[in-house]
Amino acid sequence: MRNILVIGAGRSSSSLIKYLLDKSNSEKLYITVADISLENAEERIQDHTNAKALKFDVFNEAQRKAEIEKADIVVSMLPARFHIEVAKDCVEFGKHMVTASYISKEMKSLDEAAKEKGLVFMNEIGVDPGIDHMSAMDVIDRIRDNGAKILLFESFTGGLIAPESDDNLWNYKFTWNPRNVVVAGQGGAAKFIQEGTYKYIPYHKLFRRTEFLTLNGDGKFEAYANRDSLKYRSVYGLDNIPTMYRGTIRKVGFSRAWNTFVQLGMTDDTYTIEDSENMSYRDFTNLFLAYSPSDSVELKLRSYLKIDQDDVMWDKLVELDIFNADKKVGLKNATPAQILQKILSDSWTLKEDDKDMIVMHHKFGYEINGEKRQIESSMVVKGENQIFTAMAKTVGLPVAIATLKILNGEITTPGVQLPISKEVYVPILEELKEYGIQFSEKKVPYLGYNPENVIG
Amino acid sequence: MRNILVIGAGRSSSSLIKYLLDKSNSEKLYITVADISLENAEERIQDHTNAKALKFDVFNEAQRKAEIEKADIVVSMLPARFHIEVAKDCVEFGKHMVTASYISKEMKSLDEAAKEKGLVFMNEIGVDPGIDHMSAMDVIDRIRDNGAKILLFESFTGGLIAPESDDNLWNYKFTWNPRNVVVAGQGGAAKFIQEGTYKYIPYHKLFRRTEFLTLNGDGKFEAYANRDSLKYRSVYGLDNIPTMYRGTIRKVGFSRAWNTFVQLGMTDDTYTIEDSENMSYRDFTNLFLAYSPSDSVELKLRSYLKIDQDDVMWDKLVELDIFNADKKVGLKNATPAQILQKILSDSWTLKEDDKDMIVMHHKFGYEINGEKRQIESSMVVKGENQIFTAMAKTVGLPVAIATLKILNGEITTPGVQLPISKEVYVPILEELKEYGIQFSEKKVPYLGYNPENVIG
Repeated sequence: MRNILVIGAGRSSSSLIKYLLDKSNSEKLYITVADISLENAEERIQDHTNAKALKFDVFNEAQRKAEIEKADIVVSMLPARFHIEVAKDCVEFGKHMVTASYISKEMKSLDEAAKEKGLVFMNEIGVDPGIDHMSAMDVIDRIRDNGAKILLFESFTGGLIAPESDDNLWNYKFTWNPRNVVVAGQGGAAKFIQEGTYKYIPYHKLFRRTEFLTLNGDGKFEAYANRDSLKYRSVYGLDNIPTMYRGTIRKVGFSRAWNTFVQLGMTDDTYTIEDSENMSYRDFTNLFLAYSPSDSVELKLRSYLKIDQDDVMWDKLVELDIFNADKKVGLKNATPAQILQKILSDSWTLKEDDKDMIVMHHKFGYEINGEKRQIESSMVVKGENQIFTAMAKTVGLPVAIATLKILNGEITTPGVQLPISKEVYVPILEELKEYGIQFSEKKVPYLGYNPENVIG
Repeated sequence: MRNILVIGAGRSSSSLIKYLLDKSNSEKLYITVADISLENAEERIQDHTNAKALKFDVFNEAQRKAEIEKADIVVSMLPARFHIEVAKDCVEFGKHMVTASYISKEMKSLDEAAKEKGLVFMNEIGVDPGIDHMSAMDVIDRIRDNGAKILLFESFTGGLIAPESDDNLWNYKFTWNPRNVVVAGQGGAAKFIQEGTYKYIPYHKLFRRTEFLTLNGDGKFEAYANRDSLKYRSVYGLDNIPTMYRGTIRKVGFSRAWNTFVQLGMTDDTYTIEDSENMSYRDFTNLFLAYSPSDSVELKLRSYLKIDQDDVMWDKLVELDIFNADKKVGLKNATPAQILQKILSDSWTLKEDDKDMIVMHHKFGYEINGEKRQIESSMVVKGENQIFTAMAKTVGLPVAIATLKILNGEITTPGVQLPISKEVYVPILEELKEYGIQFSEKKVPYLGYNPENVIG
């Protein structure tokens, strides 16, 4: 039996662990699922004979080192900031490691040590980052191998509610960490390049500078720009590309309404509100509006943000109950973002039968023999239920497949890396198809960066 | 002779040093003016017999300690972050110290040591902070001494161009550190309380939530909220006051036009622009607008920010030349804020005969014997020329007066402090009148916080 240590049994680990358990007899795997909550770990393995659940604290050095030493490969599904302790032990004991997180500076600094010991430290191999890297490089490499020059790369990903569970005015529910949704886009201007011109969008305009996307059969979407698209030029080897844009997908109309919260200042996570605990939702809303001895909170908000009375945006706000004078915030010393998250959770929490959906869409423009061409490539994955969600599948399956392939010596290039080489992405994308995770690709007329699709 | 060491001979030191030189015979003072630039220091003393200029580096420990040891009192007009080195030496050698800067945590931590040695460490005794504290406490103490309860305190200060030099569409020029003007309001939401209701304004709305002020004889002004008005409740001993607001004064219309730069993202100082050096002013403006193969930068900006063709805001933007395709930025790896500062400096730099102006306005609401009353108190100071500016006078004279009074044993309470006690503010406000720095006070009907004066 080969020992696989999976640290972290949260929602994103379900499909990952199921994959490994399903292969455990044929591949002779023994899986240790370690989590701060023994209950979580036990739920993941469901008494499987080739697995055990372990109560595990990543900051308990003795336990951490002992478990890592026993493993043949380590998967860390912890929050990104905790990987580094695990990674250092993996170097010490000579173990391969897999994560779905962005490569941190600390992780990067282990590159040489990992290479010296012949260890594969695979990162960014979930969905975004992960499947986006692999599916993009698959097309980019094919285009370049034909001798073409790449002119444009745009890539969009969104975690959404599946159409059959889409029953609110926002066409949105929390299918992943709600906090990340509330603070999305903060921390600096969005940066990208279009037709050779650099573009910068400040946070307070981000949700008003969306682009439209139409996916055949799956409807119309919009996307707002991710924080830093420019750094992907060097990651993908496209340093002189004139158009490089990455965005987050939402259903049309979400961003315009979300902008209300941005404009009011409700998404701010940098300061705490005085007396937040005993405040009503209505009091909270009123914090961001001018004082008046007589005007209503409703009218002040309408007037401030110039929302017409027949604008559906208004109904979206009412649906969230932000004018309710009876519902209490109930959070001590909370930031505006924390209070907003609480309010949204009342309306946007998944119901038992709700299903989620991951949508990804790439555009590649290129020139070959003097002719300009374009390829579009899309993926839509729906969740099966609340355990095997689309998010859990698309994050966990590439991690699981990579883990087994490293263990089996099919992926061997050592070092701290992300999945952009053919050795990695070709077999993983191939196997993902068996699980319904696949891209449909089509050739379209070359559009370049098409400003007709831009709002405002 | 008593030795006064003045560290820092920048623009804010001119009136301060002149005051001390003018009193040097009668008060037996010898003034050492120390600056990193010997030329600056020499210019300040103009070969006065009771003074010497010194080339001085605050990080040269030997020189710093030697000079501080020789002095009877030390005035630091350095940027705030450099005071602490000087302050520690003042504790060591038992010297009083005066600064015009906000009390930092590091400075505050010397309070006990200063008290033990009987040293006065007077801070925040320039204009804002400084004259605002003194003039506010003067009225607040008088109201409280009469047994009244204070209901409202609003305080506004602005560094502006004098009406006779006001010759651009913005009614504004850089009369002080331009960088502070460009980044003003950043770093968190503005916080205040009005009629018992907390209010928070995010940066991107700050310049649209202004209040109007009319000063008899000096025209109509507007004010935007300062970062944190709430902390002044405890500073002034007004912990349960229902209305506390501090703001920055501009001529009416400035904030609405300035909001253009905020909305575009041009005031951001947190990232650098790629290839900034060779960019034209027009290219810079275009960075913040959507890409188009054909539409003009002008039309894109108008449409994006919904500026009507006959709106004077448009003329303000044109006046600054932000659409000029020939003028180059000429700054390497610059932030948007640095580039904007460069562009503004072309238009907003003081001409040789230009004069500046400081405007301060306080409102005090209170209740006595069941009756509500209100006092308003205003100060307008104009600069004499480009050396003895209103800013230099209002910053430097209170510092100079305090320095002499500490030296003469008229201000004696030891410790790290700001000028909120009668011992300090009464004699200083009195002497400032001799230099034309005085408040005119009037009783007005009680208005409370009057929302009629609020825009939007």
